[in-house]
Amino acid sequence: MKKLIILATGLFLGVTAFAQQALWGGPQVESPVINADGTVTFRYQAPKAVKVEVTGDFLPTEKMEFEMNGRKMTADVPGVGVFKEGANGVWEYTTPFVVAPEMYTYTFRVDGQTVIDPNNVFVNRDIASLTSVLLVPKAGERSDLYAIHPVAHGSVSKVWYHSETAGFDRRLTVYTPAGYETSKAKYPVLYVLHGIGGDEDAWVTQGRATQILDNLIARGEAKPMIVVFTNGNISQEAAPLENSTGYTRPTVGLPQTMEGTFETSFPEVVKFIDSRYRTIAKKQSRAICGLSMGGFHTLYITLNNPDMFNYSGMFSAAIGTGSEQTAAHKEIYENVDGKLAAYFSKKPALLWIGIGQTDFLYQANVDFRAKLDAAGYPYKYMETDGGHIWKNWRIYLSEFVPLLFK
Amino acid sequence: MKKLIILATGLFLGVTAFAQQALWGGPQVESPVINADGTVTFRYQAPKAVKVEVTGDFLPTEKMEFEMNGRKMTADVPGVGVFKEGANGVWEYTTPFVVAPEMYTYTFRVDGQTVIDPNNVFVNRDIASLTSVLLVPKAGERSDLYAIHPVAHGSVSKVWYHSETAGFDRRLTVYTPAGYETSKAKYPVLYVLHGIGGDEDAWVTQGRATQILDNLIARGEAKPMIVVFTNGNISQEAAPLENSTGYTRPTVGLPQTMEGTFETSFPEVVKFIDSRYRTIAKKQSRAICGLSMGGFHTLYITLNNPDMFNYSGMFSAAIGTGSEQTAAHKEIYENVDGKLAAYFSKKPALLWIGIGQTDFLYQANVDFRAKLDAAGYPYKYMETDGGHIWKNWRIYLSEFVPLLFK
Repeated sequence: MKKLIILATGLFLGVTAFAQQALWGGPQVESPVINADGTVTFRYQAPKAVKVEVTGDFLPTEKMEFEMNGRKMTADVPGVGVFKEGANGVWEYTTPFVVAPEMYTYTFRVDGQTVIDPNNVFVNRDIASLTSVLLVPKAGERSDLYAIHPVAHGSVSKVWYHSETAGFDRRLTVYTPAGYETSKAKYPVLYVLHGIGGDEDAWVTQGRATQILDNLIARGEAKPMIVVFTNGNISQEAAPLENSTGYTRPTVGLPQTMEGTFETSFPEVVKFIDSRYRTIAKKQSRAICGLSMGGFHTLYITLNNPDMFNYSGMFSAAIGTGSEQTAAHKEIYENVDGKLAAYFSKKPALLWIGIGQTDFLYQANVDFRAKLDAAGYPYKYMETDGGHIWKNWRIYLSEFVPLLFK
Repeated sequence: MKKLIILATGLFLGVTAFAQQALWGGPQVESPVINADGTVTFRYQAPKAVKVEVTGDFLPTEKMEFEMNGRKMTADVPGVGVFKEGANGVWEYTTPFVVAPEMYTYTFRVDGQTVIDPNNVFVNRDIASLTSVLLVPKAGERSDLYAIHPVAHGSVSKVWYHSETAGFDRRLTVYTPAGYETSKAKYPVLYVLHGIGGDEDAWVTQGRATQILDNLIARGEAKPMIVVFTNGNISQEAAPLENSTGYTRPTVGLPQTMEGTFETSFPEVVKFIDSRYRTIAKKQSRAICGLSMGGFHTLYITLNNPDMFNYSGMFSAAIGTGSEQTAAHKEIYENVDGKLAAYFSKKPALLWIGIGQTDFLYQANVDFRAKLDAAGYPYKYMETDGGHIWKNWRIYLSEFVPLLFK
């Protein structure tokens, strides 16, 4: 029989929480800690460990070469911080630099095993990887857009639509701006697409998209708009543990992600949204954007439906990877030059392209812009530091949204 | 410069995912695995570790004594499974029993540090504790209600209302049943309240409430209804990382949880829901239930608003903890006998009470039922195995919901 005295007046703990404490005893350490000087300290209690490290996008990057579909590419990957063991088996690492205001993800590596920080409850899932979240907010900095402020908040809903293409119901995340429910007005719609590592949750968790929208709208820097986050894995009903296949481990490389089926099916999403919500159901009031695979989807959905979107944003778009070669719906990727000509002849309000200087997709985007330049097609372009990371995608969304529906 | 070759045709990985693999190399182990014989195997790779254990509610429990507000109580807490080290530093534990179909949570303990299973991406947060999720589904078993089936799904929305009591906007989770958006009908409303370890997310993540509702409604075993999940921590806008206080570590024992303020403020939630949704805005079509602290809230909200709810459900209700003694709104907890008499004189359709036989609140619920019995007040009662755990709360919700609005 174990004993525990809870020193509480007028409150009590759920057994799940205190059972852990009781069974295993002792306080956990505090990690991460944003120090007064702007450095960040990470801690991990492991008296028997031989080596403890941290990696994450707050650390300086190093170069990595890799091959994809036979093409040599280079990517920036996060560096490593090495912990030192202190008293009571508490390992500690403090950054030797001030950590800039941003939202970061990180993991620990303890004697060969990757773990998230057990003392940090803010966790992201990206495909089959868990990471801990570090948010360094600062008023006046860009990362302030990612924080929640006491402004009017939109509603964020998980909604199912029937996909004729897939043959089953599929899940969307839908943001309706503050005031939508009490208004009779019609609203423009932005569609936001994730990368191959994501699903309909990704932009809302790692992307902080609903915070960005709330804050930009509250500041008067963006129009109130409905925002729809699709699931670009057309073979999947919904995010892992949210679909009827049950307890399946998420994997990368789901079927039908970059072979035309999702692009072909996209108009059924637009049709559903226009039927369910008070939208301004015309090109002038529709926008689409996406990151990585979602940037690739954005390009081809736009080009194959030139009367559908007036604003298109390609964020670190995964063009030039060769996936078109084995597509099930080759027609989606064919005659790009002709489709570009047709698209631009209709004078879309905005084609927006953003990419990081060390993104492994940088050259493919250089090549694509060269094609646009050669034909004299107009677009807006943003180049940032860093690579294929969420930091950049949050920046691109923050830049793209204020340009819409003006 | 590091090198990595990705053996992929027509797809690629997000850099975040492969960077981890690349930096640290080697495949992670598979865990948990539900074996063909119904046992479950857990694995953890830690060549230098001295001791690896697992605890979780799939394991037989042991007794724990504790004191709360000076009262001695006993609770069941999960037992411990001890791993054995195998080849390549992979530790392994297989249950010596068949794990019954259910949804469980568990954590590992590695040389004194609690960690979640790094190879399982299904993670729950409960206050400041992370746990890994193990779902053992089986058709025909109760746990089948917790699985997602290819049936019509309701929408699940995060919605903000203005609380005059709190002085700021607060977040709710709202379930609207399949068909709500395309119908013009009015719907009954069930309010579902969490425990002191929770917030407006808890019933939807650990409670599987929206799956239970979808499945019961699809089977015709429950009426279509709107379900509202409140945040019972009235001093809090929303769940951690979803509120404007930023990167604050969740704590137990938030102010104003069991001292009357939330109960006093509850009618403003009902007023908001009746104004925002197509509800049947009368007592006959309103129900309320809650677990632990939420069961306590349910009792006092019901008794202080005898014309508001026709159905009330107390799940492992945290009555008899003494918190009423230091309440800010003492009037909420005073004259219980008179309030019970007034409430029952109006002939409510249902007072439902459920508790586990080894719940540390069992005796308090025995005492409460004795009071009802002595006065001849009707109620329905369910007693289950086990203690103060989510398994029971999912069962109680599954039993309570089919009784509503008939």
